[in-house]
Amino acid sequence: MGHGLLNGKKGIIFGALDSKSIAWKVAERCVEEGAEIVLTNAPVAMRLGEINDLALKLNCQIIPADATSVEDLENLISRSTEILGGKLDFILHSIGMSVNVRKKKEYTDLNYEWMKTTFDVSAISFHKVMQTAMKLDAMNDWGSILALTYIAAQRTFPDYSEMAESKALLESFARSFGYHWAKKAKVRVNTISQSPTVTTAGSGVKGFGDFFGYAEKMSPLGNASANACADYCVTMFSDMTRMVTMQNLFHDGGFSSMGMAPEILED
Amino acid sequence: MGHGLLNGKKGIIFGALDSKSIAWKVAERCVEEGAEIVLTNAPVAMRLGEINDLALKLNCQIIPADATSVEDLENLISRSTEILGGKLDFILHSIGMSVNVRKKKEYTDLNYEWMKTTFDVSAISFHKVMQTAMKLDAMNDWGSILALTYIAAQRTFPDYSEMAESKALLESFARSFGYHWAKKAKVRVNTISQSPTVTTAGSGVKGFGDFFGYAEKMSPLGNASANACADYCVTMFSDMTRMVTMQNLFHDGGFSSMGMAPEILED
Amino acid sequence: MGHGLLNGKKGIIFGALDSKSIAWKVAERCVEEGAEIVLTNAPVAMRLGEINDLALKLNCQIIPADATSVEDLENLISRSTEILGGKLDFILHSIGMSVNVRKKKEYTDLNYEWMKTTFDVSAISFHKVMQTAMKLDAMNDWGSILALTYIAAQRTFPDYSEMAESKALLESFARSFGYHWAKKAKVRVNTISQSPTVTTAGSGVKGFGDFFGYAEKMSPLGNASANACADYCVTMFSDMTRMVTMQNLFHDGGFSSMGMAPEILED
Amino acid sequence: MGHGLLNGKKGIIFGALDSKSIAWKVAERCVEEGAEIVLTNAPVAMRLGEINDLALKLNCQIIPADATSVEDLENLISRSTEILGGKLDFILHSIGMSVNVRKKKEYTDLNYEWMKTTFDVSAISFHKVMQTAMKLDAMNDWGSILALTYIAAQRTFPDYSEMAESKALLESFARSFGYHWAKKAKVRVNTISQSPTVTTAGSGVKGFGDFFGYAEKMSPLGNASANACADYCVTMFSDMTRMVTMQNLFHDGGFSSMGMAPEILED
Repeated sequence: MGHGLLNGKKGIIFGALDSKSIAWKVAERCVEEGAEIVLTNAPVAMRLGEINDLALKLNCQIIPADATSVEDLENLISRSTEILGGKLDFILHSIGMSVNVRKKKEYTDLNYEWMKTTFDVSAISFHKVMQTAMKLDAMNDWGSILALTYIAAQRTFPDYSEMAESKALLESFARSFGYHWAKKAKVRVNTISQSPTVTTAGSGVKGFGDFFGYAEKMSPLGNASANACADYCVTMFSDMTRMVTMQNLFHDGGFSSMGMAPEILED
Repeated sequence: MGHGLLNGKKGIIFGALDSKSIAWKVAERCVEEGAEIVLTNAPVAMRLGEINDLALKLNCQIIPADATSVEDLENLISRSTEILGGKLDFILHSIGMSVNVRKKKEYTDLNYEWMKTTFDVSAISFHKVMQTAMKLDAMNDWGSILALTYIAAQRTFPDYSEMAESKALLESFARSFGYHWAKKAKVRVNTISQSPTVTTAGSGVKGFGDFFGYAEKMSPLGNASANACADYCVTMFSDMTRMVTMQNLFHDGGFSSMGMAPEILED
Repeated sequence: MGHGLLNGKKGIIFGALDSKSIAWKVAERCVEEGAEIVLTNAPVAMRLGEINDLALKLNCQIIPADATSVEDLENLISRSTEILGGKLDFILHSIGMSVNVRKKKEYTDLNYEWMKTTFDVSAISFHKVMQTAMKLDAMNDWGSILALTYIAAQRTFPDYSEMAESKALLESFARSFGYHWAKKAKVRVNTISQSPTVTTAGSGVKGFGDFFGYAEKMSPLGNASANACADYCVTMFSDMTRMVTMQNLFHDGGFSSMGMAPEILED
Repeated sequence: MGHGLLNGKKGIIFGALDSKSIAWKVAERCVEEGAEIVLTNAPVAMRLGEINDLALKLNCQIIPADATSVEDLENLISRSTEILGGKLDFILHSIGMSVNVRKKKEYTDLNYEWMKTTFDVSAISFHKVMQTAMKLDAMNDWGSILALTYIAAQRTFPDYSEMAESKALLESFARSFGYHWAKKAKVRVNTISQSPTVTTAGSGVKGFGDFFGYAEKMSPLGNASANACADYCVTMFSDMTRMVTMQNLFHDGGFSSMGMAPEILED
């Protein structure tokens, strides 16, 4: 059913928790398009999730890694290139978690130690992945590195709390490191800013249901699904988008370009 | 050599003048990916260019149309759907021309009648294409409409003159009409903001050579070629990008995200 | 009551129709801050409005001018410098009108002749003012030129129709001409993107009332009033903002930076 | 010489190191415009700098505070309101420092512990200031909070390294907290994105001299000085900009809106 867009390409997919995860869909689509992949997730997430089912289905290996640990990332990346038999062509970073949100701390009463953990998990991990891959010289020329983000990096959604800052940080890392990756190996680095998506992680945010409905109405094409996002990621990993780099790409049914939708007022 | 990404899709390509044209490359790649197309250009451009060679090579028809004439566009679109045997799945608008630039009028001494012609040809034509296609109900659901633009819509390049305004206008039409197309038929409308490209049209701008070199150095991946742009257009016409709409997508090797490149200072 | 921020400065204010007009408030505040001004408006607007009352109150002169007529603008600017006894320090462009909106033509059924008139009145007039002032060498060094705009230039508000394109055009003229004015005389050129405002012109847009209420809720500080806008314009005409140029400045109570306001969902 | 723009207003100024500091100039201008202020800086910076001279000149008090310490900030803010005899009307955050830059670590070889310190000092401190001021209910209605930032938050300047991320974080905090401050007390929160400035801090960045010259040529009005920035800050603290919030305001002589300056190519 695939088009062979990723034939012969090798990659690592972070963040597939269960079958609702965007990373899960991306993994499926990458394999369908001809790629060989390694799956990874945090040890704790692996216990909770169903990633083994996915690995079985896709006939690929799982290497647990705490994305905040450089040591774990070194192990992950070096073992992945061994398993896959060569350097990497793509990486998907789909990791995000806010301790303050989980613990229901208001944005005007944040715990700063928790904030640091949030940034470490949700954003600094992306720099660590890129720095580790560069030190290990683990990317092929013209490779593609992607991270998933959200429009809260540009505009305020009060309930999203410190995840706004995490995403602003993440997108900045993509731009900054994109320069260095381009110079080193013509590798591109981008972020995809996805619609609110019904995942196990996303649904945990306060008022998610109401917000999902609002975004659905505000977006002329409706909210983009995880499946649609996986398709879009595949195009960004393929050789057909080689000159797109250091960009934040909205995949959101038009939400980001709407000022006001008549559909909202009609209620 | 293609991936069958556009199998069964039908489209119209505006603006293929000669083999340096981006539209020319897009036409070739669309056919390679399985699409059936109609080529069109202004009668005057057809006399100057080599579009007949392209039509012969791609085994497709040419319908001349002045893109500022609603009558011509009606004829083009209705005949295209007849020739192609169905509604359209994609349209590429690659048209731009500044009378004041051609006649070497400075930006502080513009002729306003010429400016109106510039806007009509370079931007309002895009609204006319979309309005005509909508009135004729000529687009299939989930179709894709693209126009090529330039970063002068966001930032000032003094030599680009009134083309900056043309591109700002063009991108605004994409956002505005994108809403209506989404609501009517889930059609997406986007613009691709391309690197300076050595085409017969582009090279005519004053100081193009110097500027091309500057952009090459400023862009971490270098300037994007017409061939690379054609690949990117194909992804935007394919079903893998269905939820991307009302966006301006930079295809520029990273130029748009650079503040300053050390490579510039090294000179 | 003023602070003397514009003592000794001379300027022209376009677009004061009646006491609800933003331009009206700007004129009052400029005089209060020590400026000497000339008022101008289109002959037709002058018949409808109450500009004579304002001129009387502010003890200033009115020079009628059709802002689409270069001849009228030449007369306006040269006579203004005579009346004011010197070159200009500031200009406010507050002009906008859409023929298609007035005639209730849908965005997908626009009349293109009317569109050209809309652009001429609402945006090209700004270039004409700046080009005429430059040819007449009518601005003092470190002067300030402002135009009022709306966020529809960046995001889609379907009922705003072709005014979105007018404002995109207007903002692009500010950036482009800002370069040339800076180089010639250190003059800055900016646009202020104002909240929806209850003016005689603004209220005419379809669904304005509903939209005004929506923006009020979406803006953390509420919608900015015409009076507040006048204050902001004064700062931009004063010597305290000399290095701000080629910018679009949101004066909107925070609307432009909101993704979603809980206040909207609470309804 | 002032205009009385800040008569009766009270504020805290962070970050005046020596007479080259932007914060130093802001302090001088605020007092000149009628404000009463408290100066603060980190204990270590106070030993190196000349802040005592400034306090003497402006007849104001200094309260040392490590801006990463909530305890220090509580002490600073509560004592300031005592000294000033009432709540605060404005705060300037002008703090930034990168450990990795100081220690000459490349962006592709960053030390992550140092990165956390960088973020804590340069960005998280801004959230801490705002959260502490809110908990202490220390701001008057319609107050104004400002932080100084740099365009590296939007575009890549490779030598700026992790300060790009610090500034992206800082600007995100401004937007996010701006919502809460608006709702609580109509307080506005903005960032000013300033030209490269010859300060003791700024000059320490690698290749600063070359870069300063490049920005000077690229900016149609030249680089904005610290004095000009101080003027601009005063307008943002005055009552004339009450409805501007959650914005990043470029004060850069037009740099941010330039794509390419002919002056660069002429070399």
